[in-house]
Amino acid sequence: METGLTEQATQIQPAEYAVVNAEALRAWVAAVFSSIGVTQEDARTTAENLVASDVRGIESHGVARLGGYTGRVRSGRTEAHAAPVIVHETPSTATVDAGNSLGQPASKFAMELAIAKARQTGHGAVAVRNSNHYGIAGHWAMMALPHDMIGQAYTNSSPLLVPTGARVAVTGTNPIAVAVPALRERPWVLDMATTVVPRGKLEVYRRKGLPLPLGWAVDASGRPSDDAAAVLDSMDRRAGGGILPLGGTALFSGYKGYNLSVMVDILSGVLAGSGWGVHVDGLHGSENEPAGTGHFFSATRIDGFRPAEEFKAEMDAYIRMLKETPRAEGEARIWVAGEKEWELTEQHERDGVPLYYKVIENLRAIGADIGPRFDLA
Amino acid sequence: METGLTEQATQIQPAEYAVVNAEALRAWVAAVFSSIGVTQEDARTTAENLVASDVRGIESHGVARLGGYTGRVRSGRTEAHAAPVIVHETPSTATVDAGNSLGQPASKFAMELAIAKARQTGHGAVAVRNSNHYGIAGHWAMMALPHDMIGQAYTNSSPLLVPTGARVAVTGTNPIAVAVPALRERPWVLDMATTVVPRGKLEVYRRKGLPLPLGWAVDASGRPSDDAAAVLDSMDRRAGGGILPLGGTALFSGYKGYNLSVMVDILSGVLAGSGWGVHVDGLHGSENEPAGTGHFFSATRIDGFRPAEEFKAEMDAYIRMLKETPRAEGEARIWVAGEKEWELTEQHERDGVPLYYKVIENLRAIGADIGPRFDLA
Repeated sequence: METGLTEQATQIQPAEYAVVNAEALRAWVAAVFSSIGVTQEDARTTAENLVASDVRGIESHGVARLGGYTGRVRSGRTEAHAAPVIVHETPSTATVDAGNSLGQPASKFAMELAIAKARQTGHGAVAVRNSNHYGIAGHWAMMALPHDMIGQAYTNSSPLLVPTGARVAVTGTNPIAVAVPALRERPWVLDMATTVVPRGKLEVYRRKGLPLPLGWAVDASGRPSDDAAAVLDSMDRRAGGGILPLGGTALFSGYKGYNLSVMVDILSGVLAGSGWGVHVDGLHGSENEPAGTGHFFSATRIDGFRPAEEFKAEMDAYIRMLKETPRAEGEARIWVAGEKEWELTEQHERDGVPLYYKVIENLRAIGADIGPRFDLA
Repeated sequence: METGLTEQATQIQPAEYAVVNAEALRAWVAAVFSSIGVTQEDARTTAENLVASDVRGIESHGVARLGGYTGRVRSGRTEAHAAPVIVHETPSTATVDAGNSLGQPASKFAMELAIAKARQTGHGAVAVRNSNHYGIAGHWAMMALPHDMIGQAYTNSSPLLVPTGARVAVTGTNPIAVAVPALRERPWVLDMATTVVPRGKLEVYRRKGLPLPLGWAVDASGRPSDDAAAVLDSMDRRAGGGILPLGGTALFSGYKGYNLSVMVDILSGVLAGSGWGVHVDGLHGSENEPAGTGHFFSATRIDGFRPAEEFKAEMDAYIRMLKETPRAEGEARIWVAGEKEWELTEQHERDGVPLYYKVIENLRAIGADIGPRFDLA
């Protein structure tokens, strides 16, 4: 579980979960989006991305966020329908204006464009401006896999990362997703935030009243803090404090995570001509202005470098090398990127997706409010 | 100092340094390579890369390593001369076989090819197989800057990174370099290893007999260790242990650094059809076989997305946002990637490059052995 988000689930009793059929959930989520003026195709695209997150075990980015998306569409802050427009193009590159639509349809359009360009030239790179939250990054990177391409997906998001030496958050979780096909082994899929931990981790510690490990977050003065409630409160009021970059403090090279986050923002925000840094509002921003979220996608043809079958067979060997690395004392397994998510996907597509009872209550409320009724659990 | 390597210097007395003219140093290093059969052009390219490292303040990757390179050429493990060959090509991509030559001439060739492809199609990506150590990564990424392109450079290297949950090193420091032009501000240049710290840091702690911060390295059983001497000894005998990935232990999301290192290896090694993982020998490997080092370069035309002048002006604003972020208590400055290196470059090109006395002794020995004589300090 690359994002580390599923720990929230594993720390909670199974009895607090109900299991829902994945395809039925996708159909219901799509119907909800259709009810608020989103086209059937866009509704299906958005539903597939949200449910893919739950199916992969990343509960924080799945249907738990449905109300955030629908609320923004209904208030007009996100457009229910806007066809993505290519505003600039070369044989290998393009910039797409999402027209402040939902991030998911724009992302699908952009990644398909990157794949088409890669088919023509070997590599396609597409930046998206004027978009909204696009769900889990890995879902878009993985679109390249059936084409024997390497996919990459980046996005910026609302500020919560405090740069090394600072006391205010200026960049987002700004995740990096990379998907690489293999032959017999499952594809290698990295999907990681550039913060040391996601926001959801701090929320879990606040709920449980546990002290944060020093090196996760800083308070409003920029000092390392173990007080989850104080950090979240201060961050949400934009009064300073926030989450540290991957690496944590300077002693553990936190400036690397800080700069990876900036790199993602340069590609997704500045290069796309979209919002960047403190100007990105994301799901938690003001209700009066567009989010200005930007994304960056690329697709790279493997046979632009060597025969795809050769490459994929060697990826199998690479993955086996990782799995067979001698383990540290007490460790049961060396994990390969995406492996946990593949195992959960199989299980959840077959046996159903576990949804936390509070999420189900929330879906019922959305069903009652917008329709159709939620009767899957 | 993006690689964190210059701390070695700042912890040592200035009196132990002598200052050498940068251009005279480049000319002398080039003459040394010429003396052992490297063509004048390749010798100059290699000298420029090595001295660029010292000029930028990254002493560990500069002329301190000259003897490593010359030793390998003289023993025949690295070819003194092999013209790089394009073995596979599409409009936007290529694979280059370096013929087991020095990494620097092959890297210059490959990055120039990526830039030429980007000029034609918007994006160029070039993988290099069968190469050797290429010096500092940032030097190659920065080649894109005068063309108003974003440059990226990756390379694999001999194993020293222990994956999360393991007790043996399987990937290298596998650095990521990204260079982005700005207008009035200096270009944003990231050049970072995917390990939490470089090997050189452990060597400094060994020399001083200081305990390592827990979270930098693990011993042969995979347990966090504070014993620099034991870790280095065990690692060098390939008996287990090594440096942790960026993020450190699992609690601080070390699996992210581990997977970034694997990502670099997939692009530089597997995609290039070069060595990867435990099969890369680098400078410290067996004297009997080629290093099998692989690299990956890309160049992206900014005006493939939006007008370059607009982008560069907005990069200025981005960089100013970072510099002006409110500082944590006790912090003097928020650093922007590459900023320290730009300041040191100006200073060292003007006033000379400081070289540690042991490095100078080493250069004198090389001069006496190979020629020409080293008389710059």
